[in-house]
Amino acid sequence: MGTHHDFHRRAVLAALLASTAGAMTLSGQPAVAQGDPLPSWNDSRSRQSILSFVAAITREGSSDFVPVPQRIATFDNDGTLWVEHPMYTQLVFALDRVKALASQHPEWKDTQPFKAAIEGDMRTLAASGERGLVALVMATHAGMSTREFEKIVLDWISSARDPRWKRPYTELVYLPMIELLGFLRANGFKTFIVSGGGIEFMRPWTEPVYGVPPDQVVGSSIKTKFEMRDGKPELLRLPEVDFIDDGAGKPVGINEHIGQRPIAAFGNSDGDLEMLQWATKGDGRRLGLIVHHTDGEREYAYDRQTHFGHLEKALEAAPANDWTVVSMKDDWKRIFKFQ
Amino acid sequence: MGTHHDFHRRAVLAALLASTAGAMTLSGQPAVAQGDPLPSWNDSRSRQSILSFVAAITREGSSDFVPVPQRIATFDNDGTLWVEHPMYTQLVFALDRVKALASQHPEWKDTQPFKAAIEGDMRTLAASGERGLVALVMATHAGMSTREFEKIVLDWISSARDPRWKRPYTELVYLPMIELLGFLRANGFKTFIVSGGGIEFMRPWTEPVYGVPPDQVVGSSIKTKFEMRDGKPELLRLPEVDFIDDGAGKPVGINEHIGQRPIAAFGNSDGDLEMLQWATKGDGRRLGLIVHHTDGEREYAYDRQTHFGHLEKALEAAPANDWTVVSMKDDWKRIFKFQ
Repeated sequence: MGTHHDFHRRAVLAALLASTAGAMTLSGQPAVAQGDPLPSWNDSRSRQSILSFVAAITREGSSDFVPVPQRIATFDNDGTLWVEHPMYTQLVFALDRVKALASQHPEWKDTQPFKAAIEGDMRTLAASGERGLVALVMATHAGMSTREFEKIVLDWISSARDPRWKRPYTELVYLPMIELLGFLRANGFKTFIVSGGGIEFMRPWTEPVYGVPPDQVVGSSIKTKFEMRDGKPELLRLPEVDFIDDGAGKPVGINEHIGQRPIAAFGNSDGDLEMLQWATKGDGRRLGLIVHHTDGEREYAYDRQTHFGHLEKALEAAPANDWTVVSMKDDWKRIFKFQ
Repeated sequence: MGTHHDFHRRAVLAALLASTAGAMTLSGQPAVAQGDPLPSWNDSRSRQSILSFVAAITREGSSDFVPVPQRIATFDNDGTLWVEHPMYTQLVFALDRVKALASQHPEWKDTQPFKAAIEGDMRTLAASGERGLVALVMATHAGMSTREFEKIVLDWISSARDPRWKRPYTELVYLPMIELLGFLRANGFKTFIVSGGGIEFMRPWTEPVYGVPPDQVVGSSIKTKFEMRDGKPELLRLPEVDFIDDGAGKPVGINEHIGQRPIAAFGNSDGDLEMLQWATKGDGRRLGLIVHHTDGEREYAYDRQTHFGHLEKALEAAPANDWTVVSMKDDWKRIFKFQ
């Protein structure tokens, strides 16, 4: 990260900050009234379950008390902290990259899934399945240095606009969850993102947007290789999957990166089931929470009938596990800062 | 981590703290006089290079200034923070585990490298090479849950004694480096361990001993698998190498876990060469430092002629890269707290 690069990075991040949730300070803490740490939450059972959990584990001398170093909370990203419909934001990024790189790859015009990506043929793209998606990711996320990829992500995230609200994707973050991140940190928690999304796709912007620094982001990854180029060290991104941080991979990723079991976990899909089990099926007070997308008007309504954020098993497991199920429609006063 | 387990863990950690560096508070910060942050360092060029680096990057408005979130420092462990001779402490642990488990494995009496390990035949063990060592590690570090392994490590580290000083291995940490960790943290640095050693062998005790929490430890790892056992989630440790955090693997591990390039790195062997390059060969002010084992009387003297902590290439590369080479004999007033 040379000086020029750092300058570019800082400028992009400053622009991100200015354009995104202005209610946040640089550290990502919500600037809320002292009295109410969760002002965008209705006074419902969901809100109460959060408040009583935090009150219990911070009460010194009580049997529920948890020392600060063990206050670990993990958050899924897509659909839990920001919008994941009509498709994952990282998939929009990959498709945009295919279009941007198409002129250098004339063969893509006749090769799937690239042809479908270039033509916006989502049906064929979906039919290409996981194998097709991996091919898209490798063609767009590998073959450059980590430094170059960071710049590509920052340039894209600061210029792309979503089709529905015509806003940067970093504005499509859920204000109640931003408040929750800040509330937990104010109570001694270390907050981590644990996402199926690409770790290097998230890290460039999670600190200004969520207050989560790069070393507290866990995600899927491809392999990298150290090499000296003209006497300068670089990490080259290889077209080879390293780790998929989804489903039963989430507890593995949590153990690898965090090395402690969380006492609170937040998700929205079946990909978060094992993380919720890992965090909550231990002794002592724990909090598991599922964001249920119930608001087709202000956001999207979906659970069992979608590929992006499929929620079925985790929803059925919630009552027996005492997990809090947040209804976005009923529990959240506001969803986005701009609404 | 059930309540019973937590209790056990806390008791062992409390004992560790009591027995180890008493100059440290719970957070691992050295309780030093306000005036001198590095009292165990002689007033040499090495000490000056540390002080002037920290002064420069914390001076607001100067061209060397580095914002707090980018103040990342990485430390090797074996030979940089604690003793690695006559052999790595984790190897002592593995040999002790082989002996403890031998009665359950009668076949080991006739199988190398186990036979050599049981008999203390270090020559045959060394001749078994990397393959032999991997076999030892897999037999002693895999096949149990992460929770069970943590307990095994804590029990061992709190009871084992080194043969020379007859003290717990956690007392064989270098006081000047403990002061340096605290000094950097007091100046806004986030301090990470980046070691070739096993990540799960270090994490149970790095917080009380070094003030480095589990999520700031990077190391070599084996694979784990999530599974439900009688309705309880467990991570099972598998006999399969996941990642070797050594040499060119260190920048890879740093990128995977930290996601930012360090501006300061501390090592003692050729296994730290690429980490030192990665941290220091960027624009702006950087600090690279090599601990040179020059004190055969108070500790050990070695560099080119040893398998444990072999130092040759990195030492030769130091002058051209402006890396500080610390002579333990000349630069350190005290090496251990107990001396």
